[in-house]
Amino acid sequence: MNSPDFNRYKRMVDEHLPDYLPEVDPKSSSLLKAMTYSLTAGGKRIRPILLLAACELCGGSAAAALPYACAVEYIQTYSLVHDDLPCMDDDDYRRGKPSSHRIFGEGMAVLAGDGLLSAAYEAMTKDMLLYLDDSERLKRRVKAAFVISKGTGCRGMIAGQVSDMEAEGRTPDPQLLAYIHLNKTAAFIKSVLLAGAHLGGADAAVLAKLSVFGENLGLAFQIIDDIMDVIGKGEERGKAAGGDAEAEKSTYPALYGIEKSKEYAMELLSKARAAIRGYYDHAEALSFVLDYLERQIN
Amino acid sequence: MNSPDFNRYKRMVDEHLPDYLPEVDPKSSSLLKAMTYSLTAGGKRIRPILLLAACELCGGSAAAALPYACAVEYIQTYSLVHDDLPCMDDDDYRRGKPSSHRIFGEGMAVLAGDGLLSAAYEAMTKDMLLYLDDSERLKRRVKAAFVISKGTGCRGMIAGQVSDMEAEGRTPDPQLLAYIHLNKTAAFIKSVLLAGAHLGGADAAVLAKLSVFGENLGLAFQIIDDIMDVIGKGEERGKAAGGDAEAEKSTYPALYGIEKSKEYAMELLSKARAAIRGYYDHAEALSFVLDYLERQIN
Repeated sequence: MNSPDFNRYKRMVDEHLPDYLPEVDPKSSSLLKAMTYSLTAGGKRIRPILLLAACELCGGSAAAALPYACAVEYIQTYSLVHDDLPCMDDDDYRRGKPSSHRIFGEGMAVLAGDGLLSAAYEAMTKDMLLYLDDSERLKRRVKAAFVISKGTGCRGMIAGQVSDMEAEGRTPDPQLLAYIHLNKTAAFIKSVLLAGAHLGGADAAVLAKLSVFGENLGLAFQIIDDIMDVIGKGEERGKAAGGDAEAEKSTYPALYGIEKSKEYAMELLSKARAAIRGYYDHAEALSFVLDYLERQIN
Repeated sequence: MNSPDFNRYKRMVDEHLPDYLPEVDPKSSSLLKAMTYSLTAGGKRIRPILLLAACELCGGSAAAALPYACAVEYIQTYSLVHDDLPCMDDDDYRRGKPSSHRIFGEGMAVLAGDGLLSAAYEAMTKDMLLYLDDSERLKRRVKAAFVISKGTGCRGMIAGQVSDMEAEGRTPDPQLLAYIHLNKTAAFIKSVLLAGAHLGGADAAVLAKLSVFGENLGLAFQIIDDIMDVIGKGEERGKAAGGDAEAEKSTYPALYGIEKSKEYAMELLSKARAAIRGYYDHAEALSFVLDYLERQIN
């Protein structure tokens, strides 16, 4: 199976990812190098692709949405760089390559992460400057930046990461686990879909559908990632398998076992699929992501 | 000497600082606690005060500029929390209290910093949502958020922090030192003045004056801070004196000695003062900041 749209979005992101980084002074080349190292370490670009897909689904231009697509990949990358730090998950490898702090040192990894997060907002607000006299397009951009900030901030991704860290080594608790997944992964995924939809000029009906789609997709995404951590091969995943169990992470496989986790993930993918029924013709890339995740556990 | 405006701005910031933090779920109370701990640890609030002063100087409403004033204090605070980490400056105390990582652990300090930076942009973009149908005021807000992102990002504060870190233990180099100060401190200070000015609806002439004012004030601010690190008392500063020398930091006092550093700081303060000549009547708080800095070294 293949998706021409998915591939097109991925090429756009890979090609233009460095374009929206700020013009850093040559004296700060080490910072740019550390940021670029992690950005080009071979991510799947799922979040920016979803943003571009949602934008086109709503009638917008993917090219015009690129600053926001790249910004969410900067945010995703900063979160991984910080997450890998010795004081957090202490991961030596990420996407098959040594993690940032192993190459550049911990201090630089902290600053490269801060730089990526700042660059995301610099890219989005800089893009807004181009639309100061086009109030309709400016509004869409402001809404997109806001939903991204919400989904990746203290009532989204960061909240999830804190709970994830605090749950380590404790008896897994189903309610807490749901809270972690909803925030750590689903809030961010949902926000990129809503951001893309805003940029494309979505109406309330599509926003509601994409919200349901994003939340279910995001939850499935996290559970499947945790399943792959148990059953996947380290080489394919770019990091050692079994890391979660070793770190006594709170995960679905740990709580319910592999089979029940797979069933639950399939149920979530079905709900996501149902949410975008009726939009299939213009949402090839979105259903491709669902198919891709489904294949991983079947 | 006293400044009614300065005191009024400081009260506004102290009173409203928590108001623009996102509504965090009670399950993430530990995150909010860590963020609030550092926010309320008694900062001088110089940056938000300068923003409010610049806004009123340009005819704007300080109350309407509060989300941006608080956002810059969130950014300032995140940078201190990360800067104090063992892998960075390894400071046990900040503003007279144990630093974040000593109370909450390193992982939480990283996330609290990330949370504060994210909260800054969430506050600013959320405020923009209130002005979607007031294109003039929306534009001002977009410009303010952009200059803040630029001044605190990879061609501003973070660039300076990277160079500062890299310069540690090396022979001090005057050109590099200037680069560090321009970015680490002056770029941020300049950006808050420009942000305030944009929010107040400044014209190009005032923006140019405030840019010169901000850069010179920012450089003086950093040099005086470094002088105080050598001659000041630990108790007053809230951290041990002599920390820079111990860390072999690249500073003006280390390069030129105390007296020459004082002379240079006074020269910079004069340039800053000259830049806002003609605006004195409406810039009482700005000249108060200059006077305050001058008194520290005289």
